[in-house]
Amino acid sequence: MLVRGEALFYSIPFYGVVSVMNEIGIGLAGFGTVGAGVVEGLQRHADRIAARAGVRLVLRKIADVDWERDRGVRVDPALMTRDAAALIADPSVQIVVELIGGTKAARDLVRGALDAGKPVVTANKALLAEHGTELFTLAAQRRVALGFEASVGGAIPIIRAIRDGLVANRFQRLIGILNGTCNFILTRMDREQATFDHALKDAQAAGYAEADPSLDIDGHDTAHKAVLLAGLACGVPLPFSAAHVEGIRGLSKLDIEYARELGYRIKLLAIVRLDDGDVEVRVHPTLIPSGSLLAAVNGVFNAILVEGDLAGPTLHYGRGAGRLPTASAVISDLVEVARGLAGGTAPGVPFRPQAVPPRVRPIGEAITRSYIRLSLLDRPGVLAQVASVFGQHRISIASVVQKEPHSGRHVPVVWVTHPAMDRDCAEALAEIGRLSVTSGPPIRIRIEDMEVER
Amino acid sequence: MLVRGEALFYSIPFYGVVSVMNEIGIGLAGFGTVGAGVVEGLQRHADRIAARAGVRLVLRKIADVDWERDRGVRVDPALMTRDAAALIADPSVQIVVELIGGTKAARDLVRGALDAGKPVVTANKALLAEHGTELFTLAAQRRVALGFEASVGGAIPIIRAIRDGLVANRFQRLIGILNGTCNFILTRMDREQATFDHALKDAQAAGYAEADPSLDIDGHDTAHKAVLLAGLACGVPLPFSAAHVEGIRGLSKLDIEYARELGYRIKLLAIVRLDDGDVEVRVHPTLIPSGSLLAAVNGVFNAILVEGDLAGPTLHYGRGAGRLPTASAVISDLVEVARGLAGGTAPGVPFRPQAVPPRVRPIGEAITRSYIRLSLLDRPGVLAQVASVFGQHRISIASVVQKEPHSGRHVPVVWVTHPAMDRDCAEALAEIGRLSVTSGPPIRIRIEDMEVER
Repeated sequence: MLVRGEALFYSIPFYGVVSVMNEIGIGLAGFGTVGAGVVEGLQRHADRIAARAGVRLVLRKIADVDWERDRGVRVDPALMTRDAAALIADPSVQIVVELIGGTKAARDLVRGALDAGKPVVTANKALLAEHGTELFTLAAQRRVALGFEASVGGAIPIIRAIRDGLVANRFQRLIGILNGTCNFILTRMDREQATFDHALKDAQAAGYAEADPSLDIDGHDTAHKAVLLAGLACGVPLPFSAAHVEGIRGLSKLDIEYARELGYRIKLLAIVRLDDGDVEVRVHPTLIPSGSLLAAVNGVFNAILVEGDLAGPTLHYGRGAGRLPTASAVISDLVEVARGLAGGTAPGVPFRPQAVPPRVRPIGEAITRSYIRLSLLDRPGVLAQVASVFGQHRISIASVVQKEPHSGRHVPVVWVTHPAMDRDCAEALAEIGRLSVTSGPPIRIRIEDMEVER
Repeated sequence: MLVRGEALFYSIPFYGVVSVMNEIGIGLAGFGTVGAGVVEGLQRHADRIAARAGVRLVLRKIADVDWERDRGVRVDPALMTRDAAALIADPSVQIVVELIGGTKAARDLVRGALDAGKPVVTANKALLAEHGTELFTLAAQRRVALGFEASVGGAIPIIRAIRDGLVANRFQRLIGILNGTCNFILTRMDREQATFDHALKDAQAAGYAEADPSLDIDGHDTAHKAVLLAGLACGVPLPFSAAHVEGIRGLSKLDIEYARELGYRIKLLAIVRLDDGDVEVRVHPTLIPSGSLLAAVNGVFNAILVEGDLAGPTLHYGRGAGRLPTASAVISDLVEVARGLAGGTAPGVPFRPQAVPPRVRPIGEAITRSYIRLSLLDRPGVLAQVASVFGQHRISIASVVQKEPHSGRHVPVVWVTHPAMDRDCAEALAEIGRLSVTSGPPIRIRIEDMEVER
């Protein structure tokens, strides 16, 4: 049953003066960093939001298992509970905010709330990437909102941009820098010629990386977000398996240096391509032109480049994580959902979970240029031997640069290819890796071309 | 009376499956470049939008005085009319799109439509900047939507970002590059050491500047948009008189060169500052750090940096003008308004035209650093004489660089000040301009500081 509380008897005029105040009760599950940020944001701005948006967001309950830790915000002890399910049962809670994280307890809570007809706002990209189809379908069946602006790009209102602001477009490509930890590490490696291990330690010391950094540096967090963006661009939630994922672990500073000499920077990108009813979702380290705006996105910042057939390219930049930036996104969803409850209005353009999803194009069919670094025996005929393997696999070479020998009998040779099928490139490199003239595994980093406005 | 047409008998479920198609009739006034873009966008995407957003946008009438010119799109002759008022009278037209331009006929049309209870979508920044209070008040009274996403930043969904996505924030500062013509000229001057006149001719040849370019280069177009952004940030429409306006006419390439040496680029910026209930709106050429993202916004592109207390900085970038980019924004408004008509839903957070507006802070109270170039007699004691005038007006100097003499007895001397009150700076420069040791009027360009993420 949909609980509308005090708002039920009034209606908000269609577009204008809001004369009757509608109180909407919020139940918050998960009182960690972001949870405390949401509480702080609501405390700071409840009056301003009430005046501006015509709804008063009132915190009615906070569920967490740990009530000892100081979060830096004061909350009325009467609001505290250890039982997240209490938020669903409490009739004064009209919207449930899920900030528990993880995909088990969070999934139960979100399912339970939606099932009970209570709208949910969440920042949980892992949950939505892995169980999005189930949860968005349930939300559609129960006709309640499931807000997730905070799940991608932190403070950047990218969900609304794709869903509403750019709704007129057929999307062609989305490119995102979606993980601040990785971008911090890559910025360090680029600016200070730090090794990967060194830059990772810096990120951990600065509090930007976890003790176990694998979720970030192996690309999984970026992939969760990529799948959500891809689904939004199609209008249908996609399964997490749609994404091809490679992280930045062990990236060599040599490649960052060589890429720079070639006029590129290396970023961990989420790339979504849509054409002919196919969708391609891949996450991997990528060379991008030094003069592009994305190359200028440094440190822990995020950015998403969206290419639509009418709008052309738009770029959306901001803090991708953190207590208050994430709270900004959570509260924007609360305002939207609360206005819906108060006035019977619908949120923006919804997912169509029941629609036919696009075909997911496997990574082997992706077509990109590549940067390839091989360690080759410094002997006549070797280049020709390698080049002929590329040729047999239909890979055309745009440039080859032999670097100064840095040790022993092998020299680094950097190849840049023309656009080629990913599968062909992988097969060529496997064969080249088996040649007796190569030392160590071939290094390959895909290149993504983009317009650079001069 | 609000006409709801076919949609009246159905309702869109709150957040989910849209099973009944709602046709919403569109009347388009002004079949110029953008009008033709809107028609093309609707022809291309009406099916996709219907499937995605649950509303079918159907073009029912197009009003224009010129039916001879070829716009590159086919329209059914039965839709054509020369009478814009016919759109208001036609019961099959449920939303009026105003793309006439100007502030006379457009004002009559928008007033007439709103008065008749028909929602309006417009790209007309001049109209809204000059008559916004009247029109938004009328829209609020009649409880109909007045969409204006296309009026600022072209394809960039900046209105929605400020209104909805960042609604949780108290805004502190907005900085916009809002005029593609000026940015094209400044990019040319910077990249190719072109003079202003030369770069303007290039812009005219490329179709980016009008034969009479004054609306653009004198800053008025930027100011129209600045006033709209400032109003959105406050929640109350502001009068056009709130803006202090200076353009880029006659900017010297010498100053672009000296600014570059100091680590800055020169951009025409709209700067909105909000604090203590005051709002400051100014448009002027500005030095910004070379390493900032805004400095990397080149050519005809637009960008808006928004600083909120929770979100921190977000940047929104894209094409600020053009047939299809502007159509993208117009159609996004049509979708929002049409979904409102079809489902009785309200658009995003509205203006509150009746609220108490903030105090407009006069330009004299703005506090900025300044770049100042003086042409001074090359004689001992002159620098001290000028410095003492600055001191008398409470202006503290951060650096002074005397350039090589370029002609005659006078040398260019570049001063960079610490933050100072605008009024004090103007008074000091007036006094310095009257000294016998100075030649020609002092050149002053304000500096805007911003974080550069490394």
